[in-house]
Amino acid sequence: MRSAEDLERLIRNVPDFPRPPVVFKDITTVLTAPGALGDAVTLLERKVAGFRYGAIAAIESRGFVFGAVMAERRGLPLVLIRKPGKLPAETIGEDYDLEYGSARIEMHLHSLEPGTRVLIVDDLVATGGSAAAACRLVERDGCVVAGAGFMVNLEFLGGRKRLEAAGYPVGSIVRVDSE
Amino acid sequence: MRSAEDLERLIRNVPDFPRPPVVFKDITTVLTAPGALGDAVTLLERKVAGFRYGAIAAIESRGFVFGAVMAERRGLPLVLIRKPGKLPAETIGEDYDLEYGSARIEMHLHSLEPGTRVLIVDDLVATGGSAAAACRLVERDGCVVAGAGFMVNLEFLGGRKRLEAAGYPVGSIVRVDSE
Repeated sequence: MRSAEDLERLIRNVPDFPRPPVVFKDITTVLTAPGALGDAVTLLERKVAGFRYGAIAAIESRGFVFGAVMAERRGLPLVLIRKPGKLPAETIGEDYDLEYGSARIEMHLHSLEPGTRVLIVDDLVATGGSAAAACRLVERDGCVVAGAGFMVNLEFLGGRKRLEAAGYPVGSIVRVDSE
Repeated sequence: MRSAEDLERLIRNVPDFPRPPVVFKDITTVLTAPGALGDAVTLLERKVAGFRYGAIAAIESRGFVFGAVMAERRGLPLVLIRKPGKLPAETIGEDYDLEYGSARIEMHLHSLEPGTRVLIVDDLVATGGSAAAACRLVERDGCVVAGAGFMVNLEFLGGRKRLEAAGYPVGSIVRVDSE
């Protein structure tokens, strides 16, 4: 069983992606290491163990990888939060700000029993914009946000703090303090 | 443990998505049924049990859900096959035809040890264009395609036959014979 430090060493730093001076945290090198995905999920489950969640909402696309494993291990409902136009039935949507411009995510209406406690899952939290939008979607659908879990927290971008200030507890495995 | 018929009943038919007269097979209603994702993966694992695979290549985005669980359960490497511009390091890409126009998928170069036997995974096979492109990517990267696994096979669109004619065995759980 790998430690958080072992997993951190498996992350590949890609300079200038998607543009300078960003150093992209590439988790695909974690996924190709045999057994590392399972170890990451085990560590993340421990970080969110106190959140009392009964369903997972995973954010497209890398969030699907971690969210699917977390949902499957415990037999929990998995809700996909997707980019616009991808979900075929009736949806609700939320916009959020990006560094340049804005983006939108959608969720199927009535995905879960009202009152279900939902854990938001993504691979990484940066400014927290998409995760906060996911929280609003879950609440508009009549459910309760139990918290949010991420493999990587880019602490210096403030998303973790913003989510916690809004009342959503956050768990993560690897914390990055500066660019 | 659900049967393939149980899982088929969980799939939602959405008429006229993305456009008339397509009846979209919506598997999100499988994912929100507690335990159904695990049951689907167990059934799919049985269908591909003879393919002798040592890694999973999952096609964005719904393929990530099934591929992640299959990789994690056996501690196998998971490779993400993504839409253009999403993967940060050096990639190879393949184009494939759509009903109108074409699309492209990419994979990180040198994702796996050369010679690794790879199972291609997606939620659904229709004409087989994206799966065949994924096979070409895996082979260009020096690996061997062990076969392909899908939750749903739209048999009437011919993808399963095309893949098998190209030498790639196919496993699937739910077969749909007409629109």
